Amino acid sequence: MLYNQNPYIALIIIGNEILSGRTLDKNTQYVATKLGSIGVELKEVRVIPDVEAEIVNTVNHLREKYDYVVTTGGIGPTHDDITSAAVAKAFGVELYRHPEAYKVLAEHYKGEENFNSGRLKMTYVPQGAELIGNPISMAPGFKMENVFVLAGVPSIMQAMLENVIPQLRHGVPVRAKTVNVKTGESVIATEMTELQKKYKHIDIGSYPYTNDPDHADGKHGTNIVFRGQDVGAIDNAIGEFVGLLKKMKIDFVR
Amino acid sequence: MLYNQNPYIALIIIGNEILSGRTLDKNTQYVATKLGSIGVELKEVRVIPDVEAEIVNTVNHLREKYDYVVTTGGIGPTHDDITSAAVAKAFGVELYRHPEAYKVLAEHYKGEENFNSGRLKMTYVPQGAELIGNPISMAPGFKMENVFVLAGVPSIMQAMLENVIPQLRHGVPVRAKTVNVKTGESVIATEMTELQKKYKHIDIGSYPYTNDPDHADGKHGTNIVFRGQDVGAIDNAIGEFVGLLKKMKIDFVR
Repeated sequence: MLYNQNPYIALIIIGNEILSGRTLDKNTQYVATKLGSIGVELKEVRVIPDVEAEIVNTVNHLREKYDYVVTTGGIGPTHDDITSAAVAKAFGVELYRHPEAYKVLAEHYKGEENFNSGRLKMTYVPQGAELIGNPISMAPGFKMENVFVLAGVPSIMQAMLENVIPQLRHGVPVRAKTVNVKTGESVIATEMTELQKKYKHIDIGSYPYTNDPDHADGKHGTNIVFRGQDVGAIDNAIGEFVGLLKKMKIDFVR
Repeated sequence: MLYNQNPYIALIIIGNEILSGRTLDKNTQYVATKLGSIGVELKEVRVIPDVEAEIVNTVNHLREKYDYVVTTGGIGPTHDDITSAAVAKAFGVELYRHPEAYKVLAEHYKGEENFNSGRLKMTYVPQGAELIGNPISMAPGFKMENVFVLAGVPSIMQAMLENVIPQLRHGVPVRAKTVNVKTGESVIATEMTELQKKYKHIDIGSYPYTNDPDHADGKHGTNIVFRGQDVGAIDNAIGEFVGLLKKMKIDFVR
């Protein structure tokens, strides 16, 4: 927790499809990277099922704990889409038919006569909500205080997030540089502990890999990631670390 | 929450590398699928940073709420590996040098004289812990009551999970079948609501896709997933659903 001036955000992924293993979650990485680039730091992710009490409790806990909360999933037209109702409950308000959402969707479906119960459902948001535009499938997300409620389909989530970004307080982006060390992390553990003590304002992470297909450059090694807001400090720490590796005759790629 | 007789499990992913967006989490999908196949159902995932208080609180909350908890990450030799100490704190016990872990690692590093502070650290587990074998990098995980503490590197986590599985109460595997419907989900929302009401013991999920590269078969459509323990009931629901699609003249792939 080194960058106290940056806003912190939590992500709530609502969806049985992630918990069943059917779908690989890619929204976390997208949100982390995108918001990290504007200095809004992802500090917690929760994946929870389509169960009202879980959504209510999780939203209420995290909106107190963090500057912002983003939820994904469960705002579509079907019976398993219960996020809007649950968020209304979390805030102690009722759902109501939002005139703008109604207008947008009536146009999208080419007339009110084409509304069925599912399509109508997507025109309802909690009282007090502000809509978040959805340029892809038109059904809007919404904002309640510091909670941003988005769709779960990655392409739609990403488009909605563009409309969220201007509403967030931007911080100082956290930069990261990696040194790929061609040895197990235990070899350099003591030295890294000392280095981390010295460079308190950067965050030194040690990520070993074995025969991970993502790392074609070696069968066994460690990525040392230096993260922080001050690139000069990162470069100093890396310089010192690299000197150490040379002295210890350990191969690396900078 | 339809399958009350099956054990429920929560996964805690401890790691700044997921929260920073540097690493795409693949452990969730692996754990969900692997444990789902033995009827142990993943009900919640939390991704939290390498911060002691977060780990302590999350472990203590979830071990009360679920039958089992699996944690991944943070049991290595470096300064950012704080999971073992945090789990000890969660259980109100001290870390101690486990003789078996010491023996295994002394052999692995070819002699006690090759222990440094990082390697030694991996021989310490909470008092009362039972070791979980690690056939890849040898440093063991451990079990405290219903909490299984595993490594974060996917290949090592997967190998450790094999040693966890015999220790879990197995349930009835949840089966899933999918009908890929070539239309937006809103078109069939009302009908699906009725179907879900009728088939209470299966779980009908609706997962729209747009131009998702994972779905090369169509630019816009919906996967309807029927999940449950009773394959006969799944097949009946799908039969009824498919009849409906035919009547509505909607294309699908079963």
